[in-house]
Amino acid sequence: MGPAIDAGRVIADLRELDRLTGGEGGARRVAWGPAWREAREWFAERCAEIGLEPRRDAAANVRFRLEGEARPAVALGSHLDSVPAGGWLDGALGVVAGLGVLRAWAESGERPPRDLLLVDWADEEGARFGHSLLGSSAFEGSLDTAALAGLRDPEGVAIADALAENGVELDRMPEAGAWRDEVGAYLELHIEQGPVLEAESLPVAAVDGCAGIERSRLVFSGQPAHAGTTPMGSRRDALLAAAETALEVERIAGECGGMGTTGALDARPGIPTAVAGEAALAVDLRHGDRGELTAMKDSVGQVAREAAARRGCEVTAEPVWRIDPTVFDPSLVREVGQACRDAAGSDRVLTSGALHDAALVARVVPAAMIFVASRRGLSHAPEEDSSEPDLRLGIEAFGQAANRLVQREESP
Amino acid sequence: MGPAIDAGRVIADLRELDRLTGGEGGARRVAWGPAWREAREWFAERCAEIGLEPRRDAAANVRFRLEGEARPAVALGSHLDSVPAGGWLDGALGVVAGLGVLRAWAESGERPPRDLLLVDWADEEGARFGHSLLGSSAFEGSLDTAALAGLRDPEGVAIADALAENGVELDRMPEAGAWRDEVGAYLELHIEQGPVLEAESLPVAAVDGCAGIERSRLVFSGQPAHAGTTPMGSRRDALLAAAETALEVERIAGECGGMGTTGALDARPGIPTAVAGEAALAVDLRHGDRGELTAMKDSVGQVAREAAARRGCEVTAEPVWRIDPTVFDPSLVREVGQACRDAAGSDRVLTSGALHDAALVARVVPAAMIFVASRRGLSHAPEEDSSEPDLRLGIEAFGQAANRLVQREESP
Repeated sequence: MGPAIDAGRVIADLRELDRLTGGEGGARRVAWGPAWREAREWFAERCAEIGLEPRRDAAANVRFRLEGEARPAVALGSHLDSVPAGGWLDGALGVVAGLGVLRAWAESGERPPRDLLLVDWADEEGARFGHSLLGSSAFEGSLDTAALAGLRDPEGVAIADALAENGVELDRMPEAGAWRDEVGAYLELHIEQGPVLEAESLPVAAVDGCAGIERSRLVFSGQPAHAGTTPMGSRRDALLAAAETALEVERIAGECGGMGTTGALDARPGIPTAVAGEAALAVDLRHGDRGELTAMKDSVGQVAREAAARRGCEVTAEPVWRIDPTVFDPSLVREVGQACRDAAGSDRVLTSGALHDAALVARVVPAAMIFVASRRGLSHAPEEDSSEPDLRLGIEAFGQAANRLVQREESP
Repeated sequence: MGPAIDAGRVIADLRELDRLTGGEGGARRVAWGPAWREAREWFAERCAEIGLEPRRDAAANVRFRLEGEARPAVALGSHLDSVPAGGWLDGALGVVAGLGVLRAWAESGERPPRDLLLVDWADEEGARFGHSLLGSSAFEGSLDTAALAGLRDPEGVAIADALAENGVELDRMPEAGAWRDEVGAYLELHIEQGPVLEAESLPVAAVDGCAGIERSRLVFSGQPAHAGTTPMGSRRDALLAAAETALEVERIAGECGGMGTTGALDARPGIPTAVAGEAALAVDLRHGDRGELTAMKDSVGQVAREAAARRGCEVTAEPVWRIDPTVFDPSLVREVGQACRDAAGSDRVLTSGALHDAALVARVVPAAMIFVASRRGLSHAPEEDSSEPDLRLGIEAFGQAANRLVQREESP
């Protein structure tokens, strides 16, 4: 089954990376900044120890190739960038574990049956400029550089300037698509960032896709009015219409087996002494099935119109962002599932509610993922953690899955 | 019954004041600013035409005395200051109509049976520094100058400096209480600022008091969590606990015959992709009866705790401000009610949901009010208006009520 990954060494590498670019205040590897560059330099040095050379594409994605007997390659990867005050595992786990796979082959003296590519995607988090999955979208082909050019960070720095500082020309980023043909399959190890596996006392799961997302802003318009002089029966209270809708979003998500989140409700004039004349509700709907996702969206629109009508208000839905569900390659998911059973005794298959680079890569290359259980479901925070036994099992399952793919007879 | 007020002239005066200090963009007589000072100068000139001299107290309340046969005086008044982009009637109606009463007596050649005092209270709106009823609270005795000293306007100007610019020494404002003994009764004409009279096709109402107010901030604490990875059943969503409570506030207010308003709901982190870990709900409860107001407050606290508990959240209530209900003097309310019947055919008695200078004055002097119907309940906006027939009837009812009080045999 190929050389075994050294999970202890992967974890030791991750702890060293955390010492360098994280620590008590959490990971600070925000893309395009100094700690991120330091992390990538440190990582290139680790790769150099086994003779791997970095290659950067036009979007600053970095890849390392371990030559095998055949092509196209099995690619393994994730991202070294983090959110500010982030966790030590989000992204870094997949990249460093990928190095573990290549290192096991390199140190075995055996040549893998197929090329192995190790990929560190640039700016998965979008923490500074708000555009998530930046490097992987350039690779995949959906990056809209015209829209990108308008982005600025909170300090007002234009994205083109931050990219230039890192040797990237914004207009040329789509050239990152040029190496798509090098990749025959893509595998990503990531922490779950949710509480499901922990609740089920499972260390790992195969991931069969990423939920689609419908994000919108429901803007309710009523009549601003004096809190003391407007009888309860004469009010057209936009905040209460939004509040009713928020509770309905929860009910609909539960009934459809999806996720429905209303994370913000902004009322105007937004003062204690006035009935709100306007209220904007942020709605984020997620489901692994496209039809169900559309049905959720339609139901939410319907209950919002009903809640508005009952209160003499109007409502408009402003679309914010959407992405279709991603279904990972079934044969890859089967291989990954077998590795999770063999290495960690887990039959669990999850659909990811969060987005990952794999969701975009999967549009152009067969892809799959493995999740490791998160403690308390926390992520994007310094408290993010996974137990060491779970990490070991996850890394070992990932190593076995990678070896399965690299040894498949058909082109993966 | 004494000389009749000339309602047409009162309305003409109000229109002239609006031309000088309002117009298309609305009234701009914000207290302590130039348009307010201009309004007061214009008003002093109108008073001088009938031989009245202004007297300013230590809080910049201005009063004009028309000497009568006896003391203490019947005081008539309201405020010339407005909110920015305010209405032409809010406050100004009561002051200018008060002049109408004094003018009718002065021009009749008859000496009133009792002194008449016309009062223009300073800074009723609190529009610039956030402290409403400033001048009347100095007169009444509850003004806390130590707390006041910390206030600044949105440009950062300290209140003491703005007061000094207007000849007021902050520390000496409580000396305004010195003339309380001059007043035997207080009467205020004001627009309703609500839709009740218009809905009942009534021009005027006697006002028997002002609702008490309990204002608080309910802060719900749950667990911030990822919108995509946190199953619906594992969430501790603070925004939804606040949303349920907002709907309960509406129900409780309706059942208790009071007002309950939730004008703002601020969630944290307040982004579309996170379950809110914290949500602060602004709650404003009003009722004319103290026991009912307390019961409303207790019920809201109870439902908030229940909503929080159902969702694994906690809630704390931060008191913001409170005032007991004001019950106007029953014998004055009867006189005012008789004047409303005689002049305008209205038997309606309302409790004001908004605060007025009369609410504070009533703590130290018998007081009552008359309301004139507002169009569409709008106020604190340039669109604020009342029909001319309603204004005439309201001014005439006010004139008759003032004459009733000034002619009462007992000390009013």
